[in-house]
Amino acid sequence: MRIIICGFGTVAQSLAKLLVSRMDDLYAKYGIKPRIVGAFDSKGGVSDPAGLDVNRLIEVKKKFGTIRKYDKSKKNMVGLDIINNVDADVLVETTASNYRDAEPGMSHIISAMKRRMHVISVNKGPLALAFPSLMELATYNQVLFRFSGTVGGGTPILDYAKNSLRGEQITSFAGILNGTTNYILTNMARGMSFEAALKDAKSKGYVEADESLDLDGLDAAAKLVILANWIMGMKVTMPDIKRTGIRGVTTKDIKAAAKKKCAVKLIASCNKELIVAPREVPVDDPLCVNGTLNAISFTSEHSGTQTIIGRGAGGTETASSILRDLLDIRKEISRD
Amino acid sequence: MRIIICGFGTVAQSLAKLLVSRMDDLYAKYGIKPRIVGAFDSKGGVSDPAGLDVNRLIEVKKKFGTIRKYDKSKKNMVGLDIINNVDADVLVETTASNYRDAEPGMSHIISAMKRRMHVISVNKGPLALAFPSLMELATYNQVLFRFSGTVGGGTPILDYAKNSLRGEQITSFAGILNGTTNYILTNMARGMSFEAALKDAKSKGYVEADESLDLDGLDAAAKLVILANWIMGMKVTMPDIKRTGIRGVTTKDIKAAAKKKCAVKLIASCNKELIVAPREVPVDDPLCVNGTLNAISFTSEHSGTQTIIGRGAGGTETASSILRDLLDIRKEISRD
Repeated sequence: MRIIICGFGTVAQSLAKLLVSRMDDLYAKYGIKPRIVGAFDSKGGVSDPAGLDVNRLIEVKKKFGTIRKYDKSKKNMVGLDIINNVDADVLVETTASNYRDAEPGMSHIISAMKRRMHVISVNKGPLALAFPSLMELATYNQVLFRFSGTVGGGTPILDYAKNSLRGEQITSFAGILNGTTNYILTNMARGMSFEAALKDAKSKGYVEADESLDLDGLDAAAKLVILANWIMGMKVTMPDIKRTGIRGVTTKDIKAAAKKKCAVKLIASCNKELIVAPREVPVDDPLCVNGTLNAISFTSEHSGTQTIIGRGAGGTETASSILRDLLDIRKEISRD
Repeated sequence: MRIIICGFGTVAQSLAKLLVSRMDDLYAKYGIKPRIVGAFDSKGGVSDPAGLDVNRLIEVKKKFGTIRKYDKSKKNMVGLDIINNVDADVLVETTASNYRDAEPGMSHIISAMKRRMHVISVNKGPLALAFPSLMELATYNQVLFRFSGTVGGGTPILDYAKNSLRGEQITSFAGILNGTTNYILTNMARGMSFEAALKDAKSKGYVEADESLDLDGLDAAAKLVILANWIMGMKVTMPDIKRTGIRGVTTKDIKAAAKKKCAVKLIASCNKELIVAPREVPVDDPLCVNGTLNAISFTSEHSGTQTIIGRGAGGTETASSILRDLLDIRKEISRD
């Protein structure tokens, strides 16, 4: 299985390590031999049809800040050059999410699909802005499109709702889908001011470079778009979400909630309307998790309400979701 | 798809209703047309290759306490007669669990497999006493064996661990797998004595006819056997579980736990050893759910700890799990 990796940050590096460490096991158990034939970051990239040396890629990235220095003898290629010229089976898109134009991820995904590569994206941008049309493009080109890591990180929320609950009609759902805001709100409930809690979250590396993605609910909204399309069969994009972030949440709000044995949480919900907004949640509701945890409750017609809780981020966790997608693609292909 | 139903209690009746109410939808979405060709309870049964009238079955059961009066013109058949003489694709076993000899469920399942029927069991007895050999029998006879409803009722715990976490190594798990004891312990934490809490649970119909199944942890242990075999690939049965029930839990224990911000819960765990016993769980651990809820936390190598919470019982919920198993069998068969 030949793979091109777009972006070479924490997630991509964790994936590369994971593939190497599980090489034998993956072949023995699932019959796949993943080989990274191309990889690039914002400064350029490298390719090798025989497979790149993963340890060297990580070393070079660490030393020079870019993997383009992996092989100085070759002329530098930018991302789209690699996608358009290197033959591969699967593209793994891990560049940063943005919700203005979703670039460069959007172009990566579209180019790869046109070249008949299956695509795994942990970048939420393209899905948030163009889920319905990307699915159409995948169908048209007869390729598979997977994105487990976009919601819940390593916690297989999308898979649970789609597969484990097959045969069930999910009627509504509500979730805490952004760990950073949950961390801030949890600390506010423990007495910190918003500013102090934000500072603390930043010092721990929990906040996105563009803090608006977390604080204004963009990240949660993007995940809601993905869930609504994938689980509920809706054809929606970012502008369809009613969105309020947590900047307006005051210590007073949180105290008022506590009096009612509730906590204020940033909830992304789908119940006729698609809404991201701070809400009061009873503290003994399974959804009411603290710290950086994510949680989502699905209500279905016959099996009642079920909640899944897990870490929603992390390099290794998200890499494990990419591996699951790879195995899924392998299984689907072998069925043809 | 021709089905024989063993036992015609709450779960079987819910299933029958569910199949009728979703008839069109099941055909349109999944291409299956379930037809109940045989059904029996402890007093006898009926069969009809053209399919039994579900509403009449339920009516007759309600009126006479047994479905054998469905068709007075026919000679009465007992369960094994039906399994051995009626042609069907799937046997659904819903008779009550017992952990002495697992009968009559054990004979039903073995006879059906020998006749090359796929088997869906929500009866935990046969699995608890003979999981490894029943799996072998299924393999030998080339039939599928499914039992989603035995753990978590309508909450697809087994499926989550097996499928949604595929590619992951689950290293350990711990769960609250019995809603009745959780209800009793929750009420004790709210100040009731054990006796009062038990009485209350009985009045609500939560306690098994043989209360030992709940109170002495047999039900939780049976579920632990199933999880250990199915998820961890262990070959174990009931005697391999170290089991302590909740009869020894005192109000004093619960108060002592509360002081440490913990609650006493009956935990079934797999971490090298297989143990069912009361344990102190921190109240802010996602596992620490109250009332009749079930919860289980899986810890995996790369995606951390993930918790699923849902109702662990209920006729409709368990019926929905049988439907999922039917769809699963349909999918597997069509792949051949």
